[in-house]
Amino acid sequence: MIYMDNVAGAKPDARVIEAMLPWLYEKYGNPSAHFYPLGRESYEAIENARASVARMLNAEAAENIIFASNGTEANNIAVKGCLAILGNYGKKHIIISEIEHFSIQNILVKMLKDGWRVTKLKAGNSGIVDPDDLKKAIRKDTALVSIAAANPEIGVVQDSVTLGKVCKEAGVIYHMDAVAACGRIPVDVQAMGADMVSIAGQNFYGPRGSAALYVRKGLMLKPLFDGGYQEFGIRSGSENVAGIVGIGKAAELVIDEMPEYAPRMTELGTHFSCELGKMFDYLHFTGSMKHRLPGHVSFWIEYIEGESLLMWYALNGIYAASGSACSSNILAENEDDLKASHVLTAVGVPTDICAGSMTFSFSKYTTREEVDKTLEVTPGIVQKLAEMSPSYKRN
Amino acid sequence: MIYMDNVAGAKPDARVIEAMLPWLYEKYGNPSAHFYPLGRESYEAIENARASVARMLNAEAAENIIFASNGTEANNIAVKGCLAILGNYGKKHIIISEIEHFSIQNILVKMLKDGWRVTKLKAGNSGIVDPDDLKKAIRKDTALVSIAAANPEIGVVQDSVTLGKVCKEAGVIYHMDAVAACGRIPVDVQAMGADMVSIAGQNFYGPRGSAALYVRKGLMLKPLFDGGYQEFGIRSGSENVAGIVGIGKAAELVIDEMPEYAPRMTELGTHFSCELGKMFDYLHFTGSMKHRLPGHVSFWIEYIEGESLLMWYALNGIYAASGSACSSNILAENEDDLKASHVLTAVGVPTDICAGSMTFSFSKYTTREEVDKTLEVTPGIVQKLAEMSPSYKRN
Repeated sequence: MIYMDNVAGAKPDARVIEAMLPWLYEKYGNPSAHFYPLGRESYEAIENARASVARMLNAEAAENIIFASNGTEANNIAVKGCLAILGNYGKKHIIISEIEHFSIQNILVKMLKDGWRVTKLKAGNSGIVDPDDLKKAIRKDTALVSIAAANPEIGVVQDSVTLGKVCKEAGVIYHMDAVAACGRIPVDVQAMGADMVSIAGQNFYGPRGSAALYVRKGLMLKPLFDGGYQEFGIRSGSENVAGIVGIGKAAELVIDEMPEYAPRMTELGTHFSCELGKMFDYLHFTGSMKHRLPGHVSFWIEYIEGESLLMWYALNGIYAASGSACSSNILAENEDDLKASHVLTAVGVPTDICAGSMTFSFSKYTTREEVDKTLEVTPGIVQKLAEMSPSYKRN
Repeated sequence: MIYMDNVAGAKPDARVIEAMLPWLYEKYGNPSAHFYPLGRESYEAIENARASVARMLNAEAAENIIFASNGTEANNIAVKGCLAILGNYGKKHIIISEIEHFSIQNILVKMLKDGWRVTKLKAGNSGIVDPDDLKKAIRKDTALVSIAAANPEIGVVQDSVTLGKVCKEAGVIYHMDAVAACGRIPVDVQAMGADMVSIAGQNFYGPRGSAALYVRKGLMLKPLFDGGYQEFGIRSGSENVAGIVGIGKAAELVIDEMPEYAPRMTELGTHFSCELGKMFDYLHFTGSMKHRLPGHVSFWIEYIEGESLLMWYALNGIYAASGSACSSNILAENEDDLKASHVLTAVGVPTDICAGSMTFSFSKYTTREEVDKTLEVTPGIVQKLAEMSPSYKRN
């Protein structure tokens, strides 16, 4: 098996799981039960993890980190929590990019009904938002800018530092969805000038069910959950202690080891895309090749369905993605949405000759052998699908 | 160590953790990645767990179960999700009891500001809500009744079947917080006539970070999280697969083994309370002794502080609770709230001579030896604290 869908959830690090085990079983005290050691040690484990995540993100203090259960929740806490308050101050406008994740897009679809207005900035062919466009889009009633640090589907990395500067100059809150970015590129909340940053453990070799939100000091959020005031009252409810310990350990490993593995992933990604590019004239890479997550390669092939490619790769034991994992449930809700990914459309992929894209996302464990094996089977798969495609033959 | 704070989180079952392990480490596929086996097996694991939880609760179908991250979240999804919709139909009134958990109380405190009106039913000295009181309290604009099946602090079990009938006859939605009840008494959503039921894995030997909400078919909820439409669109976001597998396994164990261990826990609880009752004249049990969770004993001692008792028990290696774990974080928010637990006040505990209560909650692992050891150290602890208490001496 060759796993190349790490943006949908990376293969976990064994050291993370090992760190979690005591907190799953023998250390089961409720962190709110400060009065006895079994509770207190759970409390301390959470605070240690908070400090680790804060260090990874270069947050001012551990108290700026709120733990949550996944990236979608972190995005929802941030965007809804902040707008629920700013809406009372005459703010009615939000700016995002065209290529935001479903959890941002779908929050805003619903908020339109409550009178909010949304500007979606173009990402262009490169997938990169122009900071000047952001500057022009900011209005007096703009409450929030939410632009992801990197896109999971096309791998493009934004110029978050400049976007953050524009927001700060305009006095607008800047939320950064760093779920795809964290663990692949440095996410420094201070350098990037972000007021809120969402991350998810499963994207940097941590456990599923773990996520965090950085919230700049002084920024008020209306909580989604009310209850017993855990997580500074922003996220009430009994804590997933093992999950929190896991994301804390994963953060430490990112601090210590990302400088070593990220360049290696970049090199492997470049090797993969160069070789693919040589193979086919009718293969098109999506998004900027320069400003890109390490080990992220995304493309489409004229007249060949992304899902068919996906299936044939899977039959060869190679697991990758077509679109993002989060879009695959949409079928049930609204089949129209699936016809073309909003991200692909945004970066100018022609819907008449593109029938879905492929995303290969490596992990720190991905080897040269795995990449070469994937390259090796590719011509056969594409040839087979090309022969089956009536449109392709007509071409 | 003798652990007697199982309502704050039960000691997990080793078989639950064992079932989770593969899903923490080698089975890391995203359940939304249906296209390859690593994703599909995660999807199937979730659906199996859903079926197990549905079976435990006697739900009509697996699709009636939504997974969440803790009981507070399940309560928030239920109450806020339902009221957000019913509010559009002229409904403006909610009925709860005086002794609901913070996650219910605090949701409603905030909703009062949005024009909702709340009736809090008296629980009386027994801690039991009278179904006739409920009947009288229901109005034309009543949207929701939310009354917990059992209270974690005083252990009282409500007559949920009759409460459910009253709601059904009046055509009012009935939410039941069964976080403390599930795994201690049978929770049958159909027999109890509940429209929504919250449960949390950590209360029945499952993992922290796992919970579920039963939602009757046809009942619409406005989601708290928007995103990629996971959990039937009611709870978007990447799933905590290991946690879900864990709560599923825990549910299976409840089905198979609760009929054996619950009577044993009841017997031990009766033994404990009988012996305690014999020891002191000035010890008062809280809540009904008859309608009570198995292995749950709660009391207060005249002029002796609950927290001091708690600390002395802890020094003897016995871990119990004073109030509920969820109330211990309130200190930071509003110190006044801590002076007397809203639950104790509701059941008529006199605040002038009661300085906090004790709650002992057993698990299926609690032994007669542990109970006897606790009984053994009790007179010494109480004697010591009585001697230290000026009020006590004056008495």
